[in-house]
Amino acid sequence: MDKKISFTQAELERLFPGLRIERPRREDLDAAQAHLDNLTKPRGSLGRLEELARRLYAMRRGELPLSVSPALMLTVAGDHGVAAQGVSPFPQAVTRQMVMNFLHGGAAVNVLCRCGGLDLRVVDAGCAGGPFTPHPMLLDRRLGDGTADMSRGPAMSRETCLNGLRRGVDLAAEAAGRGYRCLGTGEMGIANSTAGTALYCALLGLDPDALTGPGAGSDPAMVRHKAGIVREALRVNASLLASGDPVDILAAVGGFEIAVMSGIMLGAAAQRLPVLVDGFICSAAYAAALAICPALADYAVLSHASAEPGHSPALSRLAHDGAAPDGGGEPLLHLGMRLGEGTGGALAYHLLRGAAAIYNDMATFDAAGVTATEADRTA
Amino acid sequence: MDKKISFTQAELERLFPGLRIERPRREDLDAAQAHLDNLTKPRGSLGRLEELARRLYAMRRGELPLSVSPALMLTVAGDHGVAAQGVSPFPQAVTRQMVMNFLHGGAAVNVLCRCGGLDLRVVDAGCAGGPFTPHPMLLDRRLGDGTADMSRGPAMSRETCLNGLRRGVDLAAEAAGRGYRCLGTGEMGIANSTAGTALYCALLGLDPDALTGPGAGSDPAMVRHKAGIVREALRVNASLLASGDPVDILAAVGGFEIAVMSGIMLGAAAQRLPVLVDGFICSAAYAAALAICPALADYAVLSHASAEPGHSPALSRLAHDGAAPDGGGEPLLHLGMRLGEGTGGALAYHLLRGAAAIYNDMATFDAAGVTATEADRTA
Repeated sequence: MDKKISFTQAELERLFPGLRIERPRREDLDAAQAHLDNLTKPRGSLGRLEELARRLYAMRRGELPLSVSPALMLTVAGDHGVAAQGVSPFPQAVTRQMVMNFLHGGAAVNVLCRCGGLDLRVVDAGCAGGPFTPHPMLLDRRLGDGTADMSRGPAMSRETCLNGLRRGVDLAAEAAGRGYRCLGTGEMGIANSTAGTALYCALLGLDPDALTGPGAGSDPAMVRHKAGIVREALRVNASLLASGDPVDILAAVGGFEIAVMSGIMLGAAAQRLPVLVDGFICSAAYAAALAICPALADYAVLSHASAEPGHSPALSRLAHDGAAPDGGGEPLLHLGMRLGEGTGGALAYHLLRGAAAIYNDMATFDAAGVTATEADRTA
Repeated sequence: MDKKISFTQAELERLFPGLRIERPRREDLDAAQAHLDNLTKPRGSLGRLEELARRLYAMRRGELPLSVSPALMLTVAGDHGVAAQGVSPFPQAVTRQMVMNFLHGGAAVNVLCRCGGLDLRVVDAGCAGGPFTPHPMLLDRRLGDGTADMSRGPAMSRETCLNGLRRGVDLAAEAAGRGYRCLGTGEMGIANSTAGTALYCALLGLDPDALTGPGAGSDPAMVRHKAGIVREALRVNASLLASGDPVDILAAVGGFEIAVMSGIMLGAAAQRLPVLVDGFICSAAYAAALAICPALADYAVLSHASAEPGHSPALSRLAHDGAAPDGGGEPLLHLGMRLGEGTGGALAYHLLRGAAAIYNDMATFDAAGVTATEADRTA
């Protein structure tokens, strides 16, 4: 898109009452680094842990001790009308089956949240087949019974999309109210790598052929078919996309779970909480949220580089567009994962815990009686 | 070195009584992957976590559940005569001061071990200034009062080096006997990046100018000076190095803590335990241990890529020489860290825990009632 809309604060608050995301202050980042430079280690030698500690300090404007506990992973599920176009090797029913798997504790994100010490809630943003039986882990935020087929028209209306974003913002506010100090976002939705790809293309001006990948396991012929469907979705929705309004773009080629995740990210930033952004699809929700409010970047923690081939070029474009916070916008983990659900975020959370612990608990040169070099002494 | 020595099993057992490292079996790796392919996720979608799970399964020959708990980090400290050549911005006294910092719990490795759930013990392999006052966290395995200056002659005798290796092997056996299921290695020793660099050059035939980096924070002039000292150490010890015997090489240009770490790695592998290899200096100990017994590779977990510029070319050469296990010999974490102590290993341990948990605790397609694709169904 050549045309880009950037909302003013007044427009933002009209769309999302009370939403205000404040940029961290340079002096807080500097104060945090000065403390880190006085700990018993060569300057800068903890690399990205120092970057994370600095950012955490600045998000909370100097509140100590740094804390990212307790943490809540919100895995958001939704169905996609475009699944009817045969873009995934799994049938649509798997979205619902996987939600049940989450509720029974057997999926990868369950295991990695338990291992990493994050609580997990599953948000139904609109799975096909109607509401689920109530469950303590399940939050009903349904926007419908799956989106419409984006290769035939908009996936949802602007109003539905705004509702999804607002529900996400509210979920973050509720979590902050319950004392959570870090949020994570993850997703489940058969065919949502098609939506994610279309969203990147529409928001960042990238080409479907360059960005479309195998998702959950498509073979090369299916990938070509999927790229064609993405191209068709962009063509059919061209007039909506041309407006450059990120809400319209998200409505046209997004998804229920994607809109809710974008809202959670915006809401987390407004609450001054770090928010873990997972892989390919979650990062597409991040790209949309960033277009709505660029200040979000300072609160987002890009968790891992997905094995999905489009993730790296999409993130590079985002960084190039100026959406790189302190850390340069490079994901923390490079483990060849491509599962979604929030699995990358659940793993990367450990690095946030480590960064906070380093800041809070390491001894200073003086206190430990360790000789500093001249450079360290002048910190 | 063009000339390479590879010990026969008989020679190995003569040097290290009872040491035998068994290669994992192909059928165990395959059985583990078959189980992973039947879990509720697209095949291979957990990337390097699957690689770790497969390797853990094969190390224990199919013993279930997979377990890496409890884990023990052994941070080994020693001093280096070559420190007298002004190769580090920190004075030699800092080795001893940092050991005290470890014992008081204030160093980065203390914080990251607590955060990651590893026990920590500090091994004195030979700090200058004599033995420390006994402390519950400290293991006295002193080989001397710091090594000799390798730029004037061998850092230690072959016999002392063998003692260091054997003490390391024994430390691993004792840890296994106390029930530890994973070991980590880390180091502290002012000037030991000089020793590490010399060791890589001698073992892998690399050039000091290409491999020497800032270590704990040398400026470019000091790095040039350090490269010159490494070159001098290689020249002075040329006849010992020319033998190609890895024990002679380690004696000539290694260090007390490096020899003990090499021994711990060999001992861990003999106990069929995964061993976390930390950054630049720890990987030099790994390179020496690998030259002693290449089967070690299957038990080593390269934790993180150091920001020290020589780490990546050294690991590439190791991988090229055939020392790459299942995972290709690429370190797990890329966080721009360059602190040592075992900090990278302490962080990467979380990924081993995650890998074991995934293997043990995820639901299968059948049990969860999730529809698999054809590819997954035939697993």
